[in-house]
Amino acid sequence: MNEYFKGISKIQFEGMESENPLAFKTYNPDKIILGKSMKEHLRFAACYWHNFRWPGSDVFGEGTFAHSWLKPGNEMEMAKLKADAAFEFFTKLNVPFYCFHDTDIAPEGNSLKEYSNNLAQMIDVFERKQEETGLKLLWGTANVFSHRRYLSGAASNPNPEVFAYAATQVFHAMNATKRLGGENYVLWGGREGYETLLNTDLRQERAQLGRFMQMVVEYKHKIGFRGAILIEPKPQEPTKHQYDYDTATVYGFLKQYGLENEIKVNIEANHATLAGHSFHHEIATATSLGIFGSVDANRGDAQLGWDTDQFPNSIEENTLVMYEILKAGGFTTGGLNFDARLRRPSIDIEDFFYGHIGGMDTMALALEKAALMLETDMLAKNVAKRYEAWSGPLGNRIMQGEFNLSTLADHAMTSEIDPQPVSGKQEYLENIVNNYIYK
Amino acid sequence: MNEYFKGISKIQFEGMESENPLAFKTYNPDKIILGKSMKEHLRFAACYWHNFRWPGSDVFGEGTFAHSWLKPGNEMEMAKLKADAAFEFFTKLNVPFYCFHDTDIAPEGNSLKEYSNNLAQMIDVFERKQEETGLKLLWGTANVFSHRRYLSGAASNPNPEVFAYAATQVFHAMNATKRLGGENYVLWGGREGYETLLNTDLRQERAQLGRFMQMVVEYKHKIGFRGAILIEPKPQEPTKHQYDYDTATVYGFLKQYGLENEIKVNIEANHATLAGHSFHHEIATATSLGIFGSVDANRGDAQLGWDTDQFPNSIEENTLVMYEILKAGGFTTGGLNFDARLRRPSIDIEDFFYGHIGGMDTMALALEKAALMLETDMLAKNVAKRYEAWSGPLGNRIMQGEFNLSTLADHAMTSEIDPQPVSGKQEYLENIVNNYIYK
Amino acid sequence: MNEYFKGISKIQFEGMESENPLAFKTYNPDKIILGKSMKEHLRFAACYWHNFRWPGSDVFGEGTFAHSWLKPGNEMEMAKLKADAAFEFFTKLNVPFYCFHDTDIAPEGNSLKEYSNNLAQMIDVFERKQEETGLKLLWGTANVFSHRRYLSGAASNPNPEVFAYAATQVFHAMNATKRLGGENYVLWGGREGYETLLNTDLRQERAQLGRFMQMVVEYKHKIGFRGAILIEPKPQEPTKHQYDYDTATVYGFLKQYGLENEIKVNIEANHATLAGHSFHHEIATATSLGIFGSVDANRGDAQLGWDTDQFPNSIEENTLVMYEILKAGGFTTGGLNFDARLRRPSIDIEDFFYGHIGGMDTMALALEKAALMLETDMLAKNVAKRYEAWSGPLGNRIMQGEFNLSTLADHAMTSEIDPQPVSGKQEYLENIVNNYIYK
Amino acid sequence: MNEYFKGISKIQFEGMESENPLAFKTYNPDKIILGKSMKEHLRFAACYWHNFRWPGSDVFGEGTFAHSWLKPGNEMEMAKLKADAAFEFFTKLNVPFYCFHDTDIAPEGNSLKEYSNNLAQMIDVFERKQEETGLKLLWGTANVFSHRRYLSGAASNPNPEVFAYAATQVFHAMNATKRLGGENYVLWGGREGYETLLNTDLRQERAQLGRFMQMVVEYKHKIGFRGAILIEPKPQEPTKHQYDYDTATVYGFLKQYGLENEIKVNIEANHATLAGHSFHHEIATATSLGIFGSVDANRGDAQLGWDTDQFPNSIEENTLVMYEILKAGGFTTGGLNFDARLRRPSIDIEDFFYGHIGGMDTMALALEKAALMLETDMLAKNVAKRYEAWSGPLGNRIMQGEFNLSTLADHAMTSEIDPQPVSGKQEYLENIVNNYIYK
Repeated sequence: MNEYFKGISKIQFEGMESENPLAFKTYNPDKIILGKSMKEHLRFAACYWHNFRWPGSDVFGEGTFAHSWLKPGNEMEMAKLKADAAFEFFTKLNVPFYCFHDTDIAPEGNSLKEYSNNLAQMIDVFERKQEETGLKLLWGTANVFSHRRYLSGAASNPNPEVFAYAATQVFHAMNATKRLGGENYVLWGGREGYETLLNTDLRQERAQLGRFMQMVVEYKHKIGFRGAILIEPKPQEPTKHQYDYDTATVYGFLKQYGLENEIKVNIEANHATLAGHSFHHEIATATSLGIFGSVDANRGDAQLGWDTDQFPNSIEENTLVMYEILKAGGFTTGGLNFDARLRRPSIDIEDFFYGHIGGMDTMALALEKAALMLETDMLAKNVAKRYEAWSGPLGNRIMQGEFNLSTLADHAMTSEIDPQPVSGKQEYLENIVNNYIYK
Repeated sequence: MNEYFKGISKIQFEGMESENPLAFKTYNPDKIILGKSMKEHLRFAACYWHNFRWPGSDVFGEGTFAHSWLKPGNEMEMAKLKADAAFEFFTKLNVPFYCFHDTDIAPEGNSLKEYSNNLAQMIDVFERKQEETGLKLLWGTANVFSHRRYLSGAASNPNPEVFAYAATQVFHAMNATKRLGGENYVLWGGREGYETLLNTDLRQERAQLGRFMQMVVEYKHKIGFRGAILIEPKPQEPTKHQYDYDTATVYGFLKQYGLENEIKVNIEANHATLAGHSFHHEIATATSLGIFGSVDANRGDAQLGWDTDQFPNSIEENTLVMYEILKAGGFTTGGLNFDARLRRPSIDIEDFFYGHIGGMDTMALALEKAALMLETDMLAKNVAKRYEAWSGPLGNRIMQGEFNLSTLADHAMTSEIDPQPVSGKQEYLENIVNNYIYK
Repeated sequence: MNEYFKGISKIQFEGMESENPLAFKTYNPDKIILGKSMKEHLRFAACYWHNFRWPGSDVFGEGTFAHSWLKPGNEMEMAKLKADAAFEFFTKLNVPFYCFHDTDIAPEGNSLKEYSNNLAQMIDVFERKQEETGLKLLWGTANVFSHRRYLSGAASNPNPEVFAYAATQVFHAMNATKRLGGENYVLWGGREGYETLLNTDLRQERAQLGRFMQMVVEYKHKIGFRGAILIEPKPQEPTKHQYDYDTATVYGFLKQYGLENEIKVNIEANHATLAGHSFHHEIATATSLGIFGSVDANRGDAQLGWDTDQFPNSIEENTLVMYEILKAGGFTTGGLNFDARLRRPSIDIEDFFYGHIGGMDTMALALEKAALMLETDMLAKNVAKRYEAWSGPLGNRIMQGEFNLSTLADHAMTSEIDPQPVSGKQEYLENIVNNYIYK
Repeated sequence: MNEYFKGISKIQFEGMESENPLAFKTYNPDKIILGKSMKEHLRFAACYWHNFRWPGSDVFGEGTFAHSWLKPGNEMEMAKLKADAAFEFFTKLNVPFYCFHDTDIAPEGNSLKEYSNNLAQMIDVFERKQEETGLKLLWGTANVFSHRRYLSGAASNPNPEVFAYAATQVFHAMNATKRLGGENYVLWGGREGYETLLNTDLRQERAQLGRFMQMVVEYKHKIGFRGAILIEPKPQEPTKHQYDYDTATVYGFLKQYGLENEIKVNIEANHATLAGHSFHHEIATATSLGIFGSVDANRGDAQLGWDTDQFPNSIEENTLVMYEILKAGGFTTGGLNFDARLRRPSIDIEDFFYGHIGGMDTMALALEKAALMLETDMLAKNVAKRYEAWSGPLGNRIMQGEFNLSTLADHAMTSEIDPQPVSGKQEYLENIVNNYIYK
């Protein structure tokens, strides 16, 4: 078998003092933090699409990468070659998990039959590779947005045959995910949205999407898939408006179709910021609504209005994210998938590793800082104190429904209440967070 | 009684050829459009706060207006003087409705007792003024965000006494609204959000807000208030994040607390754009979810990131909005309230009228264009045709739950479906809209 | 010769009452407005790249168009076939001008020699086609941003050989433009910017760019090219930051290199909005600085943060733009080039025409409205009155340098000046603009 | 004399292990970094306006602060009391500098005479206080944007009397700054912009502004003021568009009026981000153009579109900023002024200290990290290597003007150049920066 990443050995932890750019500075897989290894906490995954399908092109320019697996050739042979390269990469990168779309790993073919045959063959290949390498599948998904048949959506398409085509892909991708022991199945509705309201029936498209999700959940139970079903919110791009805009929007959708206990969210940092939220906000919102599932770890660029999918590199931002995740009990089936890609000018084979190493070190250090925060947890203590009156008599009576508006107004007037404001202490708390991070 | 707007008579319709800037060019109250008068369609309201409370100040500068009603003086006397000026203005402006916050019309006082006494006195005044002028109240609301006691929210405050204080204001404001024959009661959660996640318990604050809304709805039924209860979405400002972010978010909240049939939304154009949506999107989303209530007609500035509250002046934008409203059956209790204010340098008394006249003419012309669109309704015909396959056998079987994922995949594979994309025709439809507007 | 746009005849003016979607409703080429024909005023151009090079792909999906000229084949043969299709399209669309990049019309080849040979052959073809059809070239340009050699810029590249390669392309593209009678030569620095400051020497890159522009200007004079040299500002995309951010930034650059009388700007609507400005602002800024050249007529989407390049369809926005252009004397060498493309789902051959017809009708109607505004020019009269005191004694003395800070302060103190604010009348003026548009 | 900040002693350095929230964790004034003390490097200033003039109000709510110096009373007495409080605060905060607007420290009065008398009296007070405390003035400025006379600008006002009024204020404020030993004089054109293009003569307003700046520079030389004149860029707010949009725009303006060697920029972090740039970008742009002067250290909120003026708290962001400043030789007359204010709910007297302490610790730690970066300076080495070919024969000949476009094209064709792209190494460099910060 060919070696694709020549001269690069498996990435190892060497610590902050190392000057080796191909070593981890902070990610030490077996280091125990709060009773679990870093590896178990972080559950890192690398993705197939950005690394093995994207040629380094953008809207204004051709591909810049010169990888052998991007060369033209017999499609099935190239798919196998790509799988060789991918598993070599994942192994050398020292991640326990990977993720894929159906059409990343197998050629789409010209019919559903070709599609399902190709996929079946490749699943055999992947099963063998997983055994050989010990790699596991964090999640699988189906690409129902790139082919021109999906130009007006998949489940929300005006043509029910397109719905059926997408359902077939999802059927096969769910089966494949189950067979490969995938821990989750993800749905990202890339074109489940609209380009213009002028040609769109919002109510109809929402109903279609609702039915589709119900079918997915029903099928999960039917086949006994134990992983979680995850929706990935994104506000727009490629469409003008995507129905899974953000976590709060997805929650409303799940409630409408009775799915709020069946489907969780896969939150992507860059999608959060495109939706006008901080990454921290989306994570905190999901945990507060009980629908937090998994994370696509990346970052956007605060000055750019599109999905730049850069590798995460802010410990400051991600410490708060990891704190929120730890407080919520940590990942169960979810993990940290790097839905991230190199900048187009980063054309060296080493750059693939630099990007991921930087991302992994960032999240690992954020985990360490977050664990430190949890030890003394001054934030949680402050929050508990701030809301403590809600456990007192007035608070309890209000929340237990003992007052109506009229009796509560009577109570307030009679008691001549004159509540005095207290400081929100934001700057104090921000200083505390920095002290945790930089101590 | 003093005259405050000297030299200005009641604004009349004079038509497009008029060169009188103090006349309506397109708003002709009694003109019949689709079987109803313009006045009944549009249900215009002017607001109390921007016109009679705001002195023309901004974050970087003092008030620029020199109105007599903004002078210092005995608070109750000034409140009455302001009411005189306001009703003179509303009458001369020729709007059928107005809107207010409790603290716009009556001094807050230093206690709930003073507050309720002041409000009671002013309601007497307003009742009399409504009788004299024939003006009606589109909606009332309570200001539970300006006083320093509300610096960390009202219903979502960490202190239940603040919740009780706010409840008391809403109790009185609802009673006042009912007594004045108000057609709706609005809740805008100006500080129901967070400044920083570091000190915030999202789950707790959401539960408080849920209980508050339930109390409002229960009280509405208790007193037999026939109007609608409306929540006004806004993503941020003054807080960093407001819980009623946008229509989709409000919908999820209503579903969680079983209120989706009890509360509707009051959509503001500028809030829509701050949330990353078009005004059209928010209206269409609300109608598709069955929670459309009323409109705060204004506009933002596409280059500015705050709530500029300018008067609407785009017929192109508002024609689509009015089209959506007409398609949904038009306003019931709702209407078009101008939550809009002059630019700070517009300091002449005439400017008050120019702003509103421009807004009213804009919405009236948009109504005419939308009615024209509805006559032949090429948009609706195109939409019906686009989705017609969902009324066919495959579409019906899918939506009626006759397929599960597996049987649908079988069906698709067996039938060897190969759905071909059709054009979305966006440019064609955009041209049609422009033809309607400029014919 | 093949016909590519079968069933479509040359687009004709039929007026607002026409229901033919393949006719102009307002663009009447020979209609005289303010002494010139519409055709002469508007100087419409269609572009080669969006129409004949772009396959309907986006970052998340493959091409959706099935045009014969996008099929694989011998490169030179396909280039000729594409030219046939293009000139058929331009002719049927009834535009007087077109625009191209060197690599749109001729294959790049694998060396500069191949490149220049291919281009030379195609220029022969284009010369003949221009003669046959009467079409003219509004401007030519060189694509020095798509090939991977340009991944870190062209003139601003860290490698001077890349500078030399780009210079060679521009040399050939300028020669070609001159030979084809092009009225302008455009430079859009797609990757003249940075991806990260961490690897960038801003001073060095700016100096390189300055030298490049000087060479272009020197060469223009050397060959006696009579057209204008134009820089097209854009803030970002594909790079994180582009040096030609906006008109004001370009002005500073031109001043630094002594080029402010040699180079003008080609303003694109969507680039203006991406830079945080209104389209109107960029046009007005360029005319006020004396560097207005030409226009890429399109529009962005106020909710999306990337270059959507949609066809212009707002008469409201473009009336102010055309008003500004007319006030500045109208186009000289410049014109209105549609740097606009179909939405990806608009896959029918008719959609190409609908997009352009809509854009042309929009700009034509905007021209008519703007001409109407100029007739009585209430805006200009208001502006003249507003600033008239600057023609008075105090204003004159200040501007002629008769005061220094100290003597002016003396004058102010002695005269006890107490200037009173006057209304900015914004709402009044906005109403006037709407009256002009909708009368 | 009263003590206003009771119970708070002068803030001291206690190091990262300290749990005292009223101590510096990293700012150790006398610690030597690269040969200079932290105090000399950072030149911290606290500002008068946010701390002693702003009552904690926002657009939607009243002041929340209950400070004695905000109470009503005799204006001159309150001004003196405020000065007492301010100097106590500055001293306890342990900053070497402060900054003010004329109208922050002295009542405006009702005429220029009253204004100049009030200011003169207060300058006496301040001179004494500076002597007593050792505090120094980083810069002074004049507020020519808050009073209603300035509603349409100061120097760019349509009324030359307003220009004269502003000139008089600047005359006095410059004199005061000189007398107090101020190290810079700042001009922030809060309303030097437009609200609407409909009433604006851009060319005229720019010319007025140009003349004003020339007068300021001439007067500086006349009185022998040794400090720098600084313009503070901001894109908008309060106006829709401000002429000093960003550093690149200011540079073009300075070039036009021959002032590029006379005026520098005072860059504010939050203004940078509102203009669509990173803070780092604005600093790097200013140093590359030779116009870097001083810094208003604060931060915005990536989700909010207005000037939130929060205290800086990102070491990650500010390390790059400090690196850029150190590379450019460090501050000369400039410094780090906290143009930052508390969140409105931070109402305790301690919060004033927490905000500033956090900001100072952030910038001090950023300085330490930046100094570490400079020691081995892997970034600079990488940049030098990246551009080294520009010091080779081809690069030199191009930059020295030895080629024109034609001879360079000949050279390229003849040499058959085929430049190969090299990696931009962005991810590698980002990892290096994080290694410096977190080692």
